[in-house]
Amino acid sequence: MIDVKQANLTAVSRMVAARPVLRGISTAGDVIPGLEPDMLLHAGPPIAWEQMSGPLRGAIVGALLFEGRASSVTEAEALVEAGEVRFSPCHQHDAVGPMAGVISPSMAVYEVEDLTHGHRTFSNLNEGYGKVLRYGAYGDDVLERLRWMHSDLAPAVGAALAEGDGIDLRALLSEALHMGDEGHNRNKAGSLLFLRHLAPAISRLVSGPEVDRILEFLGGNALSVLNPVMAACKAMGDAAHGIEGSTVVTAMARNGTDFGIRVSGLGDAWFTAPAAVPDGLYFPGFGPDDANPDIGDSTITETAGIGAFAMAASPAIVSFIGGHPDDALTATLEMYEITVAEHDHFTIPALGFRGTPVGIDLQKVVELGVTPRVNTGIAHRQAGVGQVGAGLVRPPIEIFEEALIAWADRYLG
Amino acid sequence: MIDVKQANLTAVSRMVAARPVLRGISTAGDVIPGLEPDMLLHAGPPIAWEQMSGPLRGAIVGALLFEGRASSVTEAEALVEAGEVRFSPCHQHDAVGPMAGVISPSMAVYEVEDLTHGHRTFSNLNEGYGKVLRYGAYGDDVLERLRWMHSDLAPAVGAALAEGDGIDLRALLSEALHMGDEGHNRNKAGSLLFLRHLAPAISRLVSGPEVDRILEFLGGNALSVLNPVMAACKAMGDAAHGIEGSTVVTAMARNGTDFGIRVSGLGDAWFTAPAAVPDGLYFPGFGPDDANPDIGDSTITETAGIGAFAMAASPAIVSFIGGHPDDALTATLEMYEITVAEHDHFTIPALGFRGTPVGIDLQKVVELGVTPRVNTGIAHRQAGVGQVGAGLVRPPIEIFEEALIAWADRYLG
Repeated sequence: MIDVKQANLTAVSRMVAARPVLRGISTAGDVIPGLEPDMLLHAGPPIAWEQMSGPLRGAIVGALLFEGRASSVTEAEALVEAGEVRFSPCHQHDAVGPMAGVISPSMAVYEVEDLTHGHRTFSNLNEGYGKVLRYGAYGDDVLERLRWMHSDLAPAVGAALAEGDGIDLRALLSEALHMGDEGHNRNKAGSLLFLRHLAPAISRLVSGPEVDRILEFLGGNALSVLNPVMAACKAMGDAAHGIEGSTVVTAMARNGTDFGIRVSGLGDAWFTAPAAVPDGLYFPGFGPDDANPDIGDSTITETAGIGAFAMAASPAIVSFIGGHPDDALTATLEMYEITVAEHDHFTIPALGFRGTPVGIDLQKVVELGVTPRVNTGIAHRQAGVGQVGAGLVRPPIEIFEEALIAWADRYLG
Repeated sequence: MIDVKQANLTAVSRMVAARPVLRGISTAGDVIPGLEPDMLLHAGPPIAWEQMSGPLRGAIVGALLFEGRASSVTEAEALVEAGEVRFSPCHQHDAVGPMAGVISPSMAVYEVEDLTHGHRTFSNLNEGYGKVLRYGAYGDDVLERLRWMHSDLAPAVGAALAEGDGIDLRALLSEALHMGDEGHNRNKAGSLLFLRHLAPAISRLVSGPEVDRILEFLGGNALSVLNPVMAACKAMGDAAHGIEGSTVVTAMARNGTDFGIRVSGLGDAWFTAPAAVPDGLYFPGFGPDDANPDIGDSTITETAGIGAFAMAASPAIVSFIGGHPDDALTATLEMYEITVAEHDHFTIPALGFRGTPVGIDLQKVVELGVTPRVNTGIAHRQAGVGQVGAGLVRPPIEIFEEALIAWADRYLG
């Protein structure tokens, strides 16, 4: 007989014990397992071109232009339609990417190592706000920025990281949660801590006027650290994965069409349903009609006990996503109801340093009818437009119900 | 007949309207009004050598060694006892300094300009934690660091500041309060925002290996921004000063022996009484018996509506100064009772973005028997030891009572 409770405690204690350290920067095709030259990775569960939404298609076009596999949008789309491009979820390659989450073989990626379990995970580099590939933009400015990031930014950050013992991302997140971040939509403090770690070595190693632009780029982008943080959360989720009998959710991810989850005791299966449109604040000139359904691997943060789960640490976030600071408190308090444990390392000062709710339990979600809360950016539904707002969303409850049925089939059937 | 209420509203609205911008770095003797070559400025109200406590005496010895006016402790003390050194409070020279607050003529100082009222204020550079001049230490390591700060750090920061429009310190503080700082004892976020402003230009303007040390020093010191912040608060306090009939406190400062206040409608008079020993947490190996009475000009932060007055924005601070996060909330809520207004620019997310309590009203303090709360570092009572803890303190109520009597004499008598 399966001891679910014990299995879940094992899963969560592995999640909490994971200690992801940012080791360096490499080229995706060299380090990401199974990423073949004809392949593009994307956010969320598996999806075919025909089902993809605007922003994901846009990012794929942009990546093919960046790779030099196409020299125009028409060529890129023709290449895809001729079946020359294979698609695979980041999550199936130890990787994660925000929004469209497209990672192509020649892109620079962060390498994170979980010191506790020895596992390596990856994420791409953050491009900042505005028109960016991850929101499906692929104009000349977008590609130019990407090329600069790969020719200048990545080598500088990589050289700085190569010098030391890496950056302990769990420690960085612990500190950032005491500085008003929740680690998903608000990474202001974490990105400055990231800058503080990198700036001295970069300033010494990089000569010439480029160093100014590099530090400006890293320091001016309040999401600089989001991608390494996501890779860290992926390491935490993976550490909890594969525990026989466990009903703990180890990945939540959206591809812009479907929301998918994976469960510790249910192997590599994805449980998916159509993704909802987030509820939030829109930038001037945009509204709900412009919004794409929920997209991105960034829900790995909530999976690991931060993001909306840590929102009580981040009352200022409501000015960005809407609502009142009390709602931030409520969000965290509600998540204690559907989780297995309280985090040892991620604590919330305003709750008397209580640990964040961690380890979403499928059983509790279904029993209480309470789905995980998620903070998110909102993408325009058309390729190439970019971000139009930010808000809150929840995954469809059906995927938890289906997963619980699958669990029952496997362990009780 | 004096309209006190209107006078106080005028004073506070000037305090809130002040917009201090960090303009650059200069040499104290060149820019601070009235700072003569034989003079040393110090924190708090006026005080003679005979009445000075250990840490202030230590800082004065250190400053005379730094100036080259003495080459040993004995020589420095002999110089003072021969009447060769004049002392004057920073506050009487448009300046402020944390803890001992000693500013000597050849020291580098930050120059802050209040864009609204055109007034300039000054503060020295922060040396970081441990054995430092401001805690009365004067060993070779202390003097060596000071010399490096003046030969390398100050020119680099000065050059970076000279390039742009300066750093809007009111805006920086607004942001830092949404990132868990209270602006007095906790300046973690503010110091990183400061680093973000400076790092790109410093890295471009400074060549050689020193740039590494400079960025490491600025980024590694969570109090880097405290001194410019204090000069900013001094500008706010000064903006509110001199309003006929006003009972608003425009300066609170301690010299390690006495706690003194100045009041908007009472000219240059100081109202003083013996300073208390702070109540707080001590570093390992130290306790209340080691503590010096309260010292420093840093209470200018509380005077301007931050520090302990903004503690509700900074629940994590209790791990440093003692108490429970609820106490941080209570501290701010209590300060609304003795202040005139709520700040337009400094807001507290956890209180639904309510403005911080600003403008301490003498009348309310005396009427309610509630004195201002102050966050502070705790200095060892002997010269040369340094910081031994951090905690909370309140000024003696007598100084408010005396000031109110003086106010009545002047305006009602």
